[in-house]
Amino acid sequence: MRLPIESGDPRVEMEGFRRSLAEFATGVTVISTSTGGERFGLTSNSFTSVSLDPPLVLWSIRRESKSFAAFAACSHFAVNVLAEDQIELSQRFARSGPDKFGDLDCDAGEGAAPLLAGVAASFECVCRQTLDGGDHLILIGEVVRYHRHDRRPLLFVKGGYAVSAEHPDMRAFAGGSADRSDGSEERVLSNLMIRAYSSIASRLEQGRQTEGLGLTLMQARLLRAAATSPDRTLDALMPELFLDFGASRSLLESVVSLGLVAVDDHGRIRLTAAGEERLRAIVAHARANEAILFQGIPDSDLATVRRVLSTMVSTQLGAPAVAQ
Amino acid sequence: MRLPIESGDPRVEMEGFRRSLAEFATGVTVISTSTGGERFGLTSNSFTSVSLDPPLVLWSIRRESKSFAAFAACSHFAVNVLAEDQIELSQRFARSGPDKFGDLDCDAGEGAAPLLAGVAASFECVCRQTLDGGDHLILIGEVVRYHRHDRRPLLFVKGGYAVSAEHPDMRAFAGGSADRSDGSEERVLSNLMIRAYSSIASRLEQGRQTEGLGLTLMQARLLRAAATSPDRTLDALMPELFLDFGASRSLLESVVSLGLVAVDDHGRIRLTAAGEERLRAIVAHARANEAILFQGIPDSDLATVRRVLSTMVSTQLGAPAVAQ
Repeated sequence: MRLPIESGDPRVEMEGFRRSLAEFATGVTVISTSTGGERFGLTSNSFTSVSLDPPLVLWSIRRESKSFAAFAACSHFAVNVLAEDQIELSQRFARSGPDKFGDLDCDAGEGAAPLLAGVAASFECVCRQTLDGGDHLILIGEVVRYHRHDRRPLLFVKGGYAVSAEHPDMRAFAGGSADRSDGSEERVLSNLMIRAYSSIASRLEQGRQTEGLGLTLMQARLLRAAATSPDRTLDALMPELFLDFGASRSLLESVVSLGLVAVDDHGRIRLTAAGEERLRAIVAHARANEAILFQGIPDSDLATVRRVLSTMVSTQLGAPAVAQ
Repeated sequence: MRLPIESGDPRVEMEGFRRSLAEFATGVTVISTSTGGERFGLTSNSFTSVSLDPPLVLWSIRRESKSFAAFAACSHFAVNVLAEDQIELSQRFARSGPDKFGDLDCDAGEGAAPLLAGVAASFECVCRQTLDGGDHLILIGEVVRYHRHDRRPLLFVKGGYAVSAEHPDMRAFAGGSADRSDGSEERVLSNLMIRAYSSIASRLEQGRQTEGLGLTLMQARLLRAAATSPDRTLDALMPELFLDFGASRSLLESVVSLGLVAVDDHGRIRLTAAGEERLRAIVAHARANEAILFQGIPDSDLATVRRVLSTMVSTQLGAPAVAQ
């Protein structure tokens, strides 16, 4: 059995435990409630369905959360499942603040809990039970109304935002047969694209494991961000990390404890010599692994690929969809 | 506010509720335990983290599950978070059967709960509490040991398997600046690839919504599978749907109730005339929307893109990763 990158007792190594939990991918929700005319909302990825009949869902709230008192005593809450293009909402509700809703486009659901616009799905719930969950409180809700919008969902994977693509093996199976039967060459291209992307990503994954660079994707990203423009504080770096303050701080602490990053008395962040060396090794390694995928492909062909993909991306931004 | 595709009371419309829950993306886990020398395991996507200190996680098991008695009384369980290439394991543990483990490569974790090889992460847990959760039982475990392998995770999204890709907006931010600073052109290509894929996918999403075809991705896939080779039974179609029997059956019932599919006395599945018409409309619509992305791009360039991407995919299968 392949050895893990890290193992440990979560009571001793809390950060390792946190990183391991982040290997389980989730969607992103904004949970909302309304009490005495005031609206509360927070970003959570602890949502899960429990039961179809009766219709129950649950999520948990950190006891230190500014909105804890409001949710712990709420009669109703709404679960808003965010879509791929709603990172801004996720960030907005992950921060502390007085009225996070501001001028957002909202409806009032059961018990006046705010329903956000543009989401993938939402659930209006009666809060049925709260349960002790260590440093969190677990809330079980009975769903009284659901709404499905069928949008592409926003994901949270390994501590960062992500998007989903149909699994290549499913496409090879069901999609593949449809490709042949309807003769649509265009279908094949998007299929190929996600397979080629997966090739690059899994080659980089193999590379990371065999070389023992031993950093998570987010740790490597922090090194890159710190190298690109040194002497910034964590506050200044945060928009590039797409993490909340707690997670950013523990990410920073993890690379400081590895001796890769130093923080001065003014909170300015800079790579150490060891950090610079590690980053060079990561970049060199990524290039060496990617180069295998490109070997034997003429530069002119690679240039064509780049040009065509760029055209597709820029077309998307402008043109409206066809409604027949 | 844009109107939802469907809304309802989950006590009345259980299938609509189930479809809405599937909009929240999750990873896929196999939960395992061992009692009296016998090993039990089942596929679940209800796992969620609860607390860091103390380290608590939870999941829920259907009361009708064949393994219910074993898990309801277990002293320990292990959570195995599946990696992208472990669909076969997910399928294996989603079915009923005597010893699902067979000759699988396993270690014994705390309390002899089986730990699977090749996973993204695993958690050895002491079962601390069970709670009523309607048609499910909620199990809360205290994690005594975690293992992180840092593999690409398998996802379950909208009722089907999926893979994740870094969010294009994150790459534009942190990745983009690194692209410029290290001058690595190769990085730009994988970035472009996921953006181009997202363009196609979100255009198709817009298309589905504006035209009101009103089917989920899985419903459309069932129509395609039934059209490709008619008169198969649900058992025969299931490998192409990548769903367990319960979910496949309700998927089938949903398209039967829409009048798109008919099932004869021998369980053979076939599109109705309305189903054939709907499938034609879906394919025509997908082509029309994709064509917008390709307009103005010479056929010879599209052919080059296809050839280059195919080369990358086939290279991946053979060549080993570089270990420096």
